[in-house]
Amino acid sequence: MGKNLTKRSEDYSKWYNELVIKADLAEMSGVRGCMVIKPYGFAIWEKIQGGLDKMFKETGHENAYFPIFIPKSYLSKEASHVEGFAKECAVVTHYRLKNAEDGSGIIVDEDAKLEEELIVRPTSETIIWDTYRRWIQSYRDLPLLINQWANVVRWEMRTRLFLRTTEFLWQEGHTAHATEKEAVEEAKLILDIYADFAENHMGVPVIKGTKTESERFAGALDTYCIEALMQDGKALQAGTSHFLGQNFAKAFDVKFATKEGKQEYVWATSWGVSTRLMGALIMTHSDDNGLVLPPKLAPIQVVIIPIYKGLEQLDAISEKVDPLVKDLRKRDISVKFDKRDTHKPGFKFNEYELKGVPIRIAIGQRDLENGTYEVARRDTLEKRIIPATEIIEEISSLLVEIQDNIFEKAKAYRESHITEVNSYEEFKTLLEEKGGFLSAHWDGTSETEERVKEETKATIRCIPLSSELEEGRCMVTGKPSSRRVLFAKAY
Amino acid sequence: MGKNLTKRSEDYSKWYNELVIKADLAEMSGVRGCMVIKPYGFAIWEKIQGGLDKMFKETGHENAYFPIFIPKSYLSKEASHVEGFAKECAVVTHYRLKNAEDGSGIIVDEDAKLEEELIVRPTSETIIWDTYRRWIQSYRDLPLLINQWANVVRWEMRTRLFLRTTEFLWQEGHTAHATEKEAVEEAKLILDIYADFAENHMGVPVIKGTKTESERFAGALDTYCIEALMQDGKALQAGTSHFLGQNFAKAFDVKFATKEGKQEYVWATSWGVSTRLMGALIMTHSDDNGLVLPPKLAPIQVVIIPIYKGLEQLDAISEKVDPLVKDLRKRDISVKFDKRDTHKPGFKFNEYELKGVPIRIAIGQRDLENGTYEVARRDTLEKRIIPATEIIEEISSLLVEIQDNIFEKAKAYRESHITEVNSYEEFKTLLEEKGGFLSAHWDGTSETEERVKEETKATIRCIPLSSELEEGRCMVTGKPSSRRVLFAKAY
Repeated sequence: MGKNLTKRSEDYSKWYNELVIKADLAEMSGVRGCMVIKPYGFAIWEKIQGGLDKMFKETGHENAYFPIFIPKSYLSKEASHVEGFAKECAVVTHYRLKNAEDGSGIIVDEDAKLEEELIVRPTSETIIWDTYRRWIQSYRDLPLLINQWANVVRWEMRTRLFLRTTEFLWQEGHTAHATEKEAVEEAKLILDIYADFAENHMGVPVIKGTKTESERFAGALDTYCIEALMQDGKALQAGTSHFLGQNFAKAFDVKFATKEGKQEYVWATSWGVSTRLMGALIMTHSDDNGLVLPPKLAPIQVVIIPIYKGLEQLDAISEKVDPLVKDLRKRDISVKFDKRDTHKPGFKFNEYELKGVPIRIAIGQRDLENGTYEVARRDTLEKRIIPATEIIEEISSLLVEIQDNIFEKAKAYRESHITEVNSYEEFKTLLEEKGGFLSAHWDGTSETEERVKEETKATIRCIPLSSELEEGRCMVTGKPSSRRVLFAKAY
Repeated sequence: MGKNLTKRSEDYSKWYNELVIKADLAEMSGVRGCMVIKPYGFAIWEKIQGGLDKMFKETGHENAYFPIFIPKSYLSKEASHVEGFAKECAVVTHYRLKNAEDGSGIIVDEDAKLEEELIVRPTSETIIWDTYRRWIQSYRDLPLLINQWANVVRWEMRTRLFLRTTEFLWQEGHTAHATEKEAVEEAKLILDIYADFAENHMGVPVIKGTKTESERFAGALDTYCIEALMQDGKALQAGTSHFLGQNFAKAFDVKFATKEGKQEYVWATSWGVSTRLMGALIMTHSDDNGLVLPPKLAPIQVVIIPIYKGLEQLDAISEKVDPLVKDLRKRDISVKFDKRDTHKPGFKFNEYELKGVPIRIAIGQRDLENGTYEVARRDTLEKRIIPATEIIEEISSLLVEIQDNIFEKAKAYRESHITEVNSYEEFKTLLEEKGGFLSAHWDGTSETEERVKEETKATIRCIPLSSELEEGRCMVTGKPSSRRVLFAKAY
């Protein structure tokens, strides 16, 4: 009956890999580095999509779709972008296969070689700005607020389900503005949306900040980010929003006529979150018994398991449960009444615990007699007997409580894992012994950042937006510093 | 103020191309054969997606996601499938680019050649059945009812927006069953869903039927289809649902243990509709003034245009319109109040007519005084003056009426363009002079089918499910035939 799940304390990484498989979220496919997202995992992703999509639309963004292929020459047009993205990628060189003459199978038709290779998009700035040149002529065409839900490919050598895969799903927003100020405000607005969604839907507390120059998106003037902390003390970048300045407008010659009739380059942002969020979700809340899902993203919020012998008892239980199911659905609560006779209750208890269903209700002969249900919550594993007359009220409030509780729990963990350090020795010790975010002074140079990374594997996760000015000295070089930044080992 | 749209009677094909561009639905990108779906076009596609997705889920299907890449060897595993799909496709041969040594730009890194080429999926049967082998062991794992929303690539030489593009968006369902009967029922269930959606959401009347052997999906034992008729008398295949037998189960060795413990191959279906539906939608209803959209798929169902001089008048109008907008939204009617002062009313009238907004409401000074609105419906172009007290009722019933009306209109056209013919001469004459579906006897051989295609360009669109047994003789060869089939020229 056990789940045979490795304990987090034994091997966190192994626990994660096993959980993703056992909870039926995803698996690696026969194609190197590419995953299959299984129905249960995809149902969670759909909830993430749905929630974010609504927030984007409420703030005036529209969806569109751009080609999956990017001509090789497009990538070269923005100098720093090509350095960042035109390396490990899938290259389409031919457009036809044919039967081998020796009958050995199908082979690439060398007569069907493309004049210019096509890259499977690793991100779409170039193809989109090539399009925006046609769409933007005047200030009347601005702002242009567009989002795309798409698959992208980055050829990764070391892959992990959801966290780093060759192909992944994401949304990428690409906006165009008349002024620098408006573009910066857009980048920040999106950061706020990401943080709001992470905290209030996913229950994942995040720190908002900006990236250092060396961690910035290739082609951006500023990269805003939200950083989350996993239970093993490692940070995870959960979303980024880039202020791109006029870099792409210049590379693709996108100008607009101002109200005064002058020609000016357009200002840009781009921003994205991906199926990586699934990794953040799993690693923030789950425990040694399996997944723990926030009610707002749980495909099944309530599961009802009948405990019975024989069809007669099941019928009696169903008579009571069927109207409850209807009532709950009317309240937009997703509920599953698992009547399968192919599996025993213990097996089912185990399965839904593993799958992180927030509330499990059991009902047996004695409950029928007493007019009660047994209600178990996944986050605390607590069980209570609830009178049938109070069950709907109980479920409704419990869903809210669980959503809050897992967020507060994760936040308490995060808060207790932000540590101020004032010397490099202390930094190294704490990084190994405690992990989490280390708040330290840094001299602002890429050299120091690189040195810390090489010596400790920790990177600067962000310069928090909330960080206050504070006179100090770089923990490594002793040079003056005006504010603390957050270091951590990261996924 | 004119739309400069070519008339359908002048050049139907040109009219279509212009309309897709001018109504802001889509455009060709800088990548050969790949389109950009613009926000307005994509909003319609999202409604199509949303409607179908709901119907799939209500019938027990779940969404999942499979890799975009298919190893070349997978395609060869099902003999007829490889013939149909492993020809014109995008082939990934390398996974890295590098800077050219002569500084001329970026080039393919020949050291990063893939051992086995990857094909960008033209359809996903092979990669999915390779996965199902791991998922299916026992009858308890069946049926497996999975759908995927995805992009696919088929290297097309001649492309047209929505109708035939190198990359397109679609959904592909892939189901696995314990028995042949259940799989056939599934294929038919999906056909019914497609037909229901086409007729009751898109307002596009369709004929359900089966394909002849030569028009079947590569790897299928039976292909069910829905066929629509465009205004130029050409047919358009709007969706297909395939009974695949055990072909893919055998090719990928997918067996299950029956209740009795025997090992048997699994039975399969696959089915799909694509962004091609957008083409069907446009060509079925639209007219020389632009797009005509069914209310159920219109991103904007009602547009309200104020006619005013000066801010004071606009304020007075807004005071009346703002509560109306709220009221309509409460009723889930999507409404846009276009207050832009950068464009004149005439320009706006034109724009929304071009974009197919079902109901246009205008309100000016005199309407304010009289307590009325001017209501214009897009389908008939009729205008009426409606008292403000009746406006909500009027809009609600008009949306239903327009939805019905455009379907009935399309159906009447379709009905008048199904013609029984009894000789090949008559067939050829009618095909040129009238077009539409020609219902004729056929001897059941691929040779005759091929001959008709070569001589007239007409193909057998389907053997209608509703066709009755009728003794007859093939119009070409005179051989006996037991039922009529539908011929047409097609997109």
